[in-house]
Amino acid sequence: MEHRYGIAVSPGIAIGPALVLDSEGVLISHRTVPPEQADAEVARLYRALDETAATARADRERMTARLGSALGNIYGAQQSMIESGWLREQIEVRIRAESYSAEYAVSRVIRDMVKRLEEVIALRTNSGASDARRSVTEFIDVERQVLSALLGHPGNPFANLTEPVIVLANDLMPSDTADFGPRTIHAFATESGGNTSHTAILAGALELPAVVGIGRFLTDVSGGDTVIVDGSEGVLVIDPDEETLAKYREKRAKLLTRQDRYEHLRDKPSVTADAVPVPIRLLGNIELAQEAAHCLDRGAEGVGLYRTEFLYLNKSAHPTEEEHYAAYASVLGTLGSNRPVVIRTLDLGADKFSSVSGAVANEKNPFLGLRSVRLCLRQRELFVTQLRAILRAGLLGDVRVMFPMISTADELRQCKTLLNDVKEELEYAGIPFKRDLRVGTMIEVPSAALLADVLAREVDFFSIGTNDLIQYTLAADRNNEHVANLYSPADPAVLRLIRMVVQAAQKEKEHGKRAFDVNVCGEMSGEPLYIPLLVGLGLRQFSATPRKIPEIKRVIRELRIPEAEEVARRALAMESASQVTSYLRDHLRKMLPSEAVD
Amino acid sequence: MEHRYGIAVSPGIAIGPALVLDSEGVLISHRTVPPEQADAEVARLYRALDETAATARADRERMTARLGSALGNIYGAQQSMIESGWLREQIEVRIRAESYSAEYAVSRVIRDMVKRLEEVIALRTNSGASDARRSVTEFIDVERQVLSALLGHPGNPFANLTEPVIVLANDLMPSDTADFGPRTIHAFATESGGNTSHTAILAGALELPAVVGIGRFLTDVSGGDTVIVDGSEGVLVIDPDEETLAKYREKRAKLLTRQDRYEHLRDKPSVTADAVPVPIRLLGNIELAQEAAHCLDRGAEGVGLYRTEFLYLNKSAHPTEEEHYAAYASVLGTLGSNRPVVIRTLDLGADKFSSVSGAVANEKNPFLGLRSVRLCLRQRELFVTQLRAILRAGLLGDVRVMFPMISTADELRQCKTLLNDVKEELEYAGIPFKRDLRVGTMIEVPSAALLADVLAREVDFFSIGTNDLIQYTLAADRNNEHVANLYSPADPAVLRLIRMVVQAAQKEKEHGKRAFDVNVCGEMSGEPLYIPLLVGLGLRQFSATPRKIPEIKRVIRELRIPEAEEVARRALAMESASQVTSYLRDHLRKMLPSEAVD
Repeated sequence: MEHRYGIAVSPGIAIGPALVLDSEGVLISHRTVPPEQADAEVARLYRALDETAATARADRERMTARLGSALGNIYGAQQSMIESGWLREQIEVRIRAESYSAEYAVSRVIRDMVKRLEEVIALRTNSGASDARRSVTEFIDVERQVLSALLGHPGNPFANLTEPVIVLANDLMPSDTADFGPRTIHAFATESGGNTSHTAILAGALELPAVVGIGRFLTDVSGGDTVIVDGSEGVLVIDPDEETLAKYREKRAKLLTRQDRYEHLRDKPSVTADAVPVPIRLLGNIELAQEAAHCLDRGAEGVGLYRTEFLYLNKSAHPTEEEHYAAYASVLGTLGSNRPVVIRTLDLGADKFSSVSGAVANEKNPFLGLRSVRLCLRQRELFVTQLRAILRAGLLGDVRVMFPMISTADELRQCKTLLNDVKEELEYAGIPFKRDLRVGTMIEVPSAALLADVLAREVDFFSIGTNDLIQYTLAADRNNEHVANLYSPADPAVLRLIRMVVQAAQKEKEHGKRAFDVNVCGEMSGEPLYIPLLVGLGLRQFSATPRKIPEIKRVIRELRIPEAEEVARRALAMESASQVTSYLRDHLRKMLPSEAVD
Repeated sequence: MEHRYGIAVSPGIAIGPALVLDSEGVLISHRTVPPEQADAEVARLYRALDETAATARADRERMTARLGSALGNIYGAQQSMIESGWLREQIEVRIRAESYSAEYAVSRVIRDMVKRLEEVIALRTNSGASDARRSVTEFIDVERQVLSALLGHPGNPFANLTEPVIVLANDLMPSDTADFGPRTIHAFATESGGNTSHTAILAGALELPAVVGIGRFLTDVSGGDTVIVDGSEGVLVIDPDEETLAKYREKRAKLLTRQDRYEHLRDKPSVTADAVPVPIRLLGNIELAQEAAHCLDRGAEGVGLYRTEFLYLNKSAHPTEEEHYAAYASVLGTLGSNRPVVIRTLDLGADKFSSVSGAVANEKNPFLGLRSVRLCLRQRELFVTQLRAILRAGLLGDVRVMFPMISTADELRQCKTLLNDVKEELEYAGIPFKRDLRVGTMIEVPSAALLADVLAREVDFFSIGTNDLIQYTLAADRNNEHVANLYSPADPAVLRLIRMVVQAAQKEKEHGKRAFDVNVCGEMSGEPLYIPLLVGLGLRQFSATPRKIPEIKRVIRELRIPEAEEVARRALAMESASQVTSYLRDHLRKMLPSEAVD
């Protein structure tokens, strides 16, 4: 049994067999076989090893013919490794002595070897270590090839699942998660990632327990091992003993009964306790079209942030205009024609889909690189396809478009020009579309917040993306555990930027004599702790993960505007995030004495 | 002949033999040998190949004994590659037929092979490509080993130079550049890097022509090839023909006569044309102690930014307190006891010295990670060593300390607390030190600029680091060519932040009734274009690469304060960087009609 600790990103407890996802996503679904099947299992192993060796041999011959023996010999290394009697013997012993399945035995032997190599790496000087590191890569590659041969070269690792699994990976790429859902997956745990990584957001969306940022553990676990994920405490237990299993089973049962405490608020209005005439609007953040239903279930008035990157799920080519349109139509079908749906244009690059989207590989600082709208403006065809679909879907309901990661007024104007070009194209082709589509911009780069007065003149609404705004303002990667102490929504610099944005919007509303909404759609707006402060700063619209909506509504219904304004005034006068956080905690405790506030 | 284009980061023209620096820094100093030496050269080759193969064999045996033959075989791949008759023959043919030196022949054969492999990579699917990529690494590694054997395993590639070379590399690590200087190096050119990379800054410091960000070219050139670097236009010419050589020789001669146009201003005061009572102070940025002399040569009044990362040059361990002290004492020895010297504490991590400093390897976004003062606060011993040396050196002159990359008031307070602890330690040990050392902070993270009023209460001066401030404010990596269009000192958001910082300092000066300087030390303060704007924003102190000082002084001496204030007022009202830039260009053209302004 081993306990590993990481960042708790999505609450709940899950217990089940591990599925270890490598880059190729090979699944080991069962760990042991009955002893009488050992001969058959060994025969399977031999067939797989022979097949893999034959492939390596063919590669070697092809490369030798093409480029000479010096190069071809490199391919011989893997071949002779696969053919070596030593490896074969080690694996066979595990199958016969421990009743391991062939897959599990291969994985166990190779991972033990990798572990020993890593000990060598830790001891050796630089030159020796680089040799050993290369060997680790070779071994992992051989494991993948042999497992793939054993499993008959499976395409989708989730296609043949007989029971739900707990997914373990270094990092989950959105493309790994196509079929994730309660039917196939209980939970997941990853070595990398942070509080607001894409993986974490996805876990929230699917309402699956998850722990991320655990650090290296994949070499200590094989597919089929029993594991526990505690997404509330941020714990992963590998190979738990009976006592631990019993403890977590009980904890899981308790959690399930505590849920849905505020479900009765679903159809109540989100107005403050002093019932000011302008109610506070609560909207949902969604990733997948089917989540639109969660919004309604939890009492959201619409969708404040519809992330569209999921159209890239399991895709090797860009999604077509019809695929975009079908997704939007599905969301609008669920929400009806009167509820707002804010579609954010593709936010690709950095950690998201860089392989299929034409993003630059190997940027040294992808968060400061060619991502999001910057990429769309370079990949016009991709951008036009989406804008066409949005304009067409605009006829189905209250659709709005929003551009992410805008950092200058020039960029925003380029987006608007392109949108107008697309309108002309549709007009010319006689295709019906929404002529007066409302246009907004995300405020998530410090320069956009600083220039909010200029940007306000260009659009109909703002949406503050606190996750990125915080990380850039403090120069602290939101997924990097080593600077997690700096990343805080309560940082006074962040609060000052938010206030600037609200003030710029208010000025635009007065001078332009028009409606101008400011929404908040980062994780911050889903935290009850920050709601009084945000209301006090003048915000009247929040968009959050649907399951957070009841809690937020509860806070709003207990809050009075002058009280919120006092909270904001005091927080803005403070000098550090920790001061602000503890003040907000005290305030919330006093406001909701019956609740546990952490 | 081949022309390659990159970013011009340090002006001037150089013509000479190439030195290709791989990770191991192996030097090929001569390309051909007289035909009568061919036999001896082939014999050298054979000895080197045999020695390298023997090492690979020994590695293989050691690893086999330790971990079994499956692993040992991996080492066999390189061995059989080195021993292959094919490789030996290819190299020998080049020595005999083309009169190549053994080193050049080895490099040429392997790089041709790598080039063919890269063509394979471009054609193949993912799985095939990853094999080929591994082979590229193996080949480059074999090249390094054989060259190293041929050259008798040289330690320092610059030790045995017979003539100055032009250094070509993927990226120059500061540790590669220990012995760079006009005696050994003419110029350099790199595949990676951008306008304000460390490499570019170093080139400026050493006043060597340099081009960076060229993209892949190292496989097209071997050590000993003749190359031209045009650091004014950003061009690298590989293997130039006679006509091209002649053209660049002429251009180089012209440049040399044009230099030092403003040398006569050296001893003139840097006052504006309307001679306001407070003169504008011009200081130098330095990296190496010997650059202190450049500051005096160019008329700087002191050192506004002494970068101390160079203490890590060619170091495998942290520098000692005495090494710090000696460096500071040397600078103070040159500058005398009355000129200010602002020592910036270690700014390690991200692109700088991450291998020796205890920084986290493999951060996904190192610029948003554990770098600079964040790292120092975790590596207290390293930080204390430097602070002790600074406090002691304080007795030798007008020394000030400055903390980089401060993002919150808490961090700044932690630095000050540590400084006080170190003072107590020195006091207790009876070691003399500067008790009232002046303390400042860099303003280079947006949060620091936004909270400048809070930070001002903690320190004696600010120094605005525009390079980082711009990249974080616009979320655009300053070394990433794909977002170079966003990175601009003239961005209105950046100007607003600078104004906030100046206003906070002015308020502190009035309320605190004390001196409070604001310096600017990024590349922006070395550009004549931005000087009127910065003066207009209220700045009265600039620190720049020494050779920029005469140009800046020239602009200041032609400028009137009300005119500068009008420039700032108008620039602040603009909406985009391009608008501001073209306005500043027009203004400078009118102000200095006799100059070429680009």
